[in-house]
Amino acid sequence: MPRPELLETFPNPNAGRDYEIRMICPEFTSLCPLGGVESDAEELRALQGGAPDFGTIEVTYVPGERCLELKGLKLYLWSFRNDGIFYERAVNRILDDLVAACAPRWMEVVGDFNVRGGIKSVITARAGSRQG
Amino acid sequence: MPRPELLETFPNPNAGRDYEIRMICPEFTSLCPLGGVESDAEELRALQGGAPDFGTIEVTYVPGERCLELKGLKLYLWSFRNDGIFYERAVNRILDDLVAACAPRWMEVVGDFNVRGGIKSVITARAGSRQG
Amino acid sequence: MPRPELLETFPNPNAGRDYEIRMICPEFTSLCPLGGVESDAEELRALQGGAPDFGTIEVTYVPGERCLELKGLKLYLWSFRNDGIFYERAVNRILDDLVAACAPRWMEVVGDFNVRGGIKSVITARAGSRQG
Amino acid sequence: MPRPELLETFPNPNAGRDYEIRMICPEFTSLCPLGGVESDAEELRALQGGAPDFGTIEVTYVPGERCLELKGLKLYLWSFRNDGIFYERAVNRILDDLVAACAPRWMEVVGDFNVRGGIKSVITARAGSRQG
Amino acid sequence: MPRPELLETFPNPNAGRDYEIRMICPEFTSLCPLGGVESDAEELRALQGGAPDFGTIEVTYVPGERCLELKGLKLYLWSFRNDGIFYERAVNRILDDLVAACAPRWMEVVGDFNVRGGIKSVITARAGSRQG
Amino acid sequence: MPRPELLETFPNPNAGRDYEIRMICPEFTSLCPLGGVESDAEELRALQGGAPDFGTIEVTYVPGERCLELKGLKLYLWSFRNDGIFYERAVNRILDDLVAACAPRWMEVVGDFNVRGGIKSVITARAGSRQG
Amino acid sequence: MPRPELLETFPNPNAGRDYEIRMICPEFTSLCPLGGVESDAEELRALQGGAPDFGTIEVTYVPGERCLELKGLKLYLWSFRNDGIFYERAVNRILDDLVAACAPRWMEVVGDFNVRGGIKSVITARAGSRQG
Amino acid sequence: MPRPELLETFPNPNAGRDYEIRMICPEFTSLCPLGGVESDAEELRALQGGAPDFGTIEVTYVPGERCLELKGLKLYLWSFRNDGIFYERAVNRILDDLVAACAPRWMEVVGDFNVRGGIKSVITARAGSRQG
Amino acid sequence: MPRPELLETFPNPNAGRDYEIRMICPEFTSLCPLGGVESDAEELRALQGGAPDFGTIEVTYVPGERCLELKGLKLYLWSFRNDGIFYERAVNRILDDLVAACAPRWMEVVGDFNVRGGIKSVITARAGSRQG
Amino acid sequence: MPRPELLETFPNPNAGRDYEIRMICPEFTSLCPLGGVESDAEELRALQGGAPDFGTIEVTYVPGERCLELKGLKLYLWSFRNDGIFYERAVNRILDDLVAACAPRWMEVVGDFNVRGGIKSVITARAGSRQG
Repeated sequence: MPRPELLETFPNPNAGRDYEIRMICPEFTSLCPLGGVESDAEELRALQGGAPDFGTIEVTYVPGERCLELKGLKLYLWSFRNDGIFYERAVNRILDDLVAACAPRWMEVVGDFNVRGGIKSVITARAGSRQG
Repeated sequence: MPRPELLETFPNPNAGRDYEIRMICPEFTSLCPLGGVESDAEELRALQGGAPDFGTIEVTYVPGERCLELKGLKLYLWSFRNDGIFYERAVNRILDDLVAACAPRWMEVVGDFNVRGGIKSVITARAGSRQG
Repeated sequence: MPRPELLETFPNPNAGRDYEIRMICPEFTSLCPLGGVESDAEELRALQGGAPDFGTIEVTYVPGERCLELKGLKLYLWSFRNDGIFYERAVNRILDDLVAACAPRWMEVVGDFNVRGGIKSVITARAGSRQG
Repeated sequence: MPRPELLETFPNPNAGRDYEIRMICPEFTSLCPLGGVESDAEELRALQGGAPDFGTIEVTYVPGERCLELKGLKLYLWSFRNDGIFYERAVNRILDDLVAACAPRWMEVVGDFNVRGGIKSVITARAGSRQG
Repeated sequence: MPRPELLETFPNPNAGRDYEIRMICPEFTSLCPLGGVESDAEELRALQGGAPDFGTIEVTYVPGERCLELKGLKLYLWSFRNDGIFYERAVNRILDDLVAACAPRWMEVVGDFNVRGGIKSVITARAGSRQG
Repeated sequence: MPRPELLETFPNPNAGRDYEIRMICPEFTSLCPLGGVESDAEELRALQGGAPDFGTIEVTYVPGERCLELKGLKLYLWSFRNDGIFYERAVNRILDDLVAACAPRWMEVVGDFNVRGGIKSVITARAGSRQG
Repeated sequence: MPRPELLETFPNPNAGRDYEIRMICPEFTSLCPLGGVESDAEELRALQGGAPDFGTIEVTYVPGERCLELKGLKLYLWSFRNDGIFYERAVNRILDDLVAACAPRWMEVVGDFNVRGGIKSVITARAGSRQG
Repeated sequence: MPRPELLETFPNPNAGRDYEIRMICPEFTSLCPLGGVESDAEELRALQGGAPDFGTIEVTYVPGERCLELKGLKLYLWSFRNDGIFYERAVNRILDDLVAACAPRWMEVVGDFNVRGGIKSVITARAGSRQG
Repeated sequence: MPRPELLETFPNPNAGRDYEIRMICPEFTSLCPLGGVESDAEELRALQGGAPDFGTIEVTYVPGERCLELKGLKLYLWSFRNDGIFYERAVNRILDDLVAACAPRWMEVVGDFNVRGGIKSVITARAGSRQG
Repeated sequence: MPRPELLETFPNPNAGRDYEIRMICPEFTSLCPLGGVESDAEELRALQGGAPDFGTIEVTYVPGERCLELKGLKLYLWSFRNDGIFYERAVNRILDDLVAACAPRWMEVVGDFNVRGGIKSVITARAGSRQG
């Protein structure tokens, strides 16, 4: 299970101005919740939920009172590593967790996942509204 | 004939939020309905409808109550493999079939086809309306 | 002289929906109407109107009742091969001829021509109006 | 089964000189001989040998007395379309068939296949010897 | 621990000819054996050996009597997922395991790892000798 | 501490027209204010505030009465070299200092920083409003 | 001094339609008006105004009654070759001269100059208004 | 018919040193000698030998006593414009004509032709021998 | 002064095999030893040796008994940050220091430095000899 | 006339080791000695030798006792600015002048010139011999 409690925040140094922060995390990996690997190798235990998925998570937001701390975001994304989760659910879950952690004025999460079965998937979800 | 009954859907895990799903399928192939191959080789039987066409199909949509399942989309696109169909008709047909299968709030289908006769074709069709 | 009578059309298979067709033709060539080649070589007869020009013609349109047939477009563009014509006139002429042939709801023609005298030219003309 | 009898040749116009011909065919497709598609859809009959594979075949050779005709090569490569064949066998088979057809002084066939299961494969086979 | 017993092979379909097989695996991940993550989150248990590393493993070989089966290679590389191992050791280990599994005439393994601490690492090891 | 007094300006040669000036500075470096380098090497004294950060600063503005002089901007950006500062604060600080120096009609500062801990950051802040 | 009298125009062949002409001139060079080269070499006489600057000038416009002739534009841009001029002034000067020469409905001039002192500059100025 | 008499040469300014000259001509066009266009349009007369072919001709040589003049090479390549000729013959013919014109110590001609029937062709021929 | 004592090594895990390690460090910065910045700003003290230089250092080697530890290499390269040193001397110095630290069988150091005065410099030095 | 007396050198800091220095100068410009510009504009006086040529000069060498100083190389290349000279002669002249100035063990000069008349030219000349 993803652990949003790993997220940490710090006070926005310029809360009086709307500005944008983009964090691009090209090393996201989780497991496909379907088609568990058929193997009794102890080392593949973690994969029994399914084959590994890889992708890039891109978070863009206009901070409110608090900003996301980079190290906490890194640990939070690592916590999906051995978790079985669908793309759609992962992107919406990340958006919900990050919004809950830092209450941004606007936030967008894009999950750009590697080809599976000859098809590449990109999921984009947004919260809040944005001017300009 | 394309077989839309191969498409499968699953419940949208975040139906309360408008978000976007893009699926990029670079391995689409069908046959040109004109100019059948003149050959009596048994192996080219499937090509008698015409020369092979190749392209990328890119589907972007805002899901409603249901999402398209990746495996079903893959099988559905494979079902064009030995079918003779014009580009314009193929893209509109895919849009119609996918809309019928999952009733999205908005959907766009782009067919980006390889050069034929020195000319490259890109067809884009949309259904529904989209905010923002 | 360009020969618009080479253009052919077929009925729009989805006239009930506004969709977009883009055709990219990277092998356009005509002759510069200035500065004829000074040579009495019989083989350069065709060039006496001037030096060859090369470019890409990109046609994008929303079809009305009829679509442009690819083979006819190819032959039509070939008919500029030994013709002396300025860039501005060529692009506007192609737009006029294609609009006359298929009466689109909207059409754009872009001529992207190779460097001449250290300067690259791109001409864009449009007809009709477009939503969204 | 691939049909090498579709290959045609013409006399090398410069057999007195060693020169190189490279033909790049980015639209190769065959079927994976493993894991047939589980479906009773009549349209997927052709796929019962397995999922479609896609790749680029690049043939480079120094012709001997005869050159490969482009149209015949195209038809020959099309004849793999509904055939189940492994990558290694396909590349070696193409090399054998082309060598038998035109007896080149040297030939190389490279098959560069799309990602399957997160792994991309490139197979290279050569026949004859080459100077310089 | 990596599990080389997951590797599988099949008879080389053209053992009489030296040819080359290249398999590019852009989704390799393991753990850094240094600097374990300081966290008591149960979900990060697997990371206690250290932070995740990401890279591409490229295997090129001239097969002897047997070829590496793609699915087994994929499972074998997955077995590094939750293992702490240095880059140098990982690349040499993969080379040793693959050579033991299929006894190639020549083999090269390249590990191209993502930036860590502002430095990117690429490790290349080879076994056997190669002509031409 | 950054030294805005190094900035210099010159009269806008076309103050009667709104036009845009973009200055791209790919050689920005500062220090991370966290995790000072543990070393008693005298040469690393300057790094005791933390590890070096690298990035590109892109300033775009519509000048008012005065334009920023290039040499002063260069010296001002150099003055961050041995300073410990967070990304968010750096970008907002640069925007504030440049606005104070030249009173533009509109200004945007983008800081595009190199990967740290597997995550790339891009911060964008704007001041003033812009037409068209 | 730049010589706008070198500019020539011809009648717009389609003055009844708003269309766009873009001319990209990647071989612009002038001299920096600061920091004259300290040398008594006769050959560097022309550089005494300062070091050479290099850039690309991109002119985009919607013609009115007349179009800019390519050869005249080339000669006009060449006339900056041994002139000392600041970037901001050069771009605004070119815009003014071209507008005076052909009275376009709308025009944009972009000067994209090479890195100087580690900073790249792009200046954009526009005249007139544009629809769509 | 190509007209080699259009080629002109000038004395090699450094005949005492082996050095290399490469001339890249991306605007080569000729006609395919097969499949004449079926049309009675007078403007397509020139195409009755077949459809237009497009490609890049790259000439690299070590000059002997004389160098090829650029303008003559340009006119010579233009003389293929309305000629029907196969790729293999065109490249060997160009090599023969250029060698006859300037007697280089070594010369290579590469013809890199656009995709036809889904296949791209590159032909390379050389004359003379080269050190280092 | 650079501090080679910051370099650390670890035993080569495969000293019985010649293999290659490449480390690419795109964040190298030092100071130009010429043309000190004329400024009495305390913050620019570190720059009094001259303007900042930026570049990428790429180290490739075949390890002997010991390998270079990544963290030590990073600290060693950081120790050039406020040092005035010419490109040629920096690259040769790095090669000497690294060879002294780990006694490789072969090593190459490439310094690829950013444009200064319109000229880009790349310096390459090697030590030891290499097979194959 | 080019002024080689502007070149300056400094003692090679590592004359005991063969290493390589590459200097890439993308801002070379001279004049074509043919086809003077027909204009009586005083500002085009400098162009009466012909139209401007642009290119990149890339110098690679293994220094002997002395290295080329960057600033002198820059001034030397600037001295071609208003000089009419053919490509072949320019590259050989630069090689001769640089060899005379610094007596390298080996040197290569590449002149990569922009397209003229639809043809791009690259001239490469070398002096001395090189190992490895």
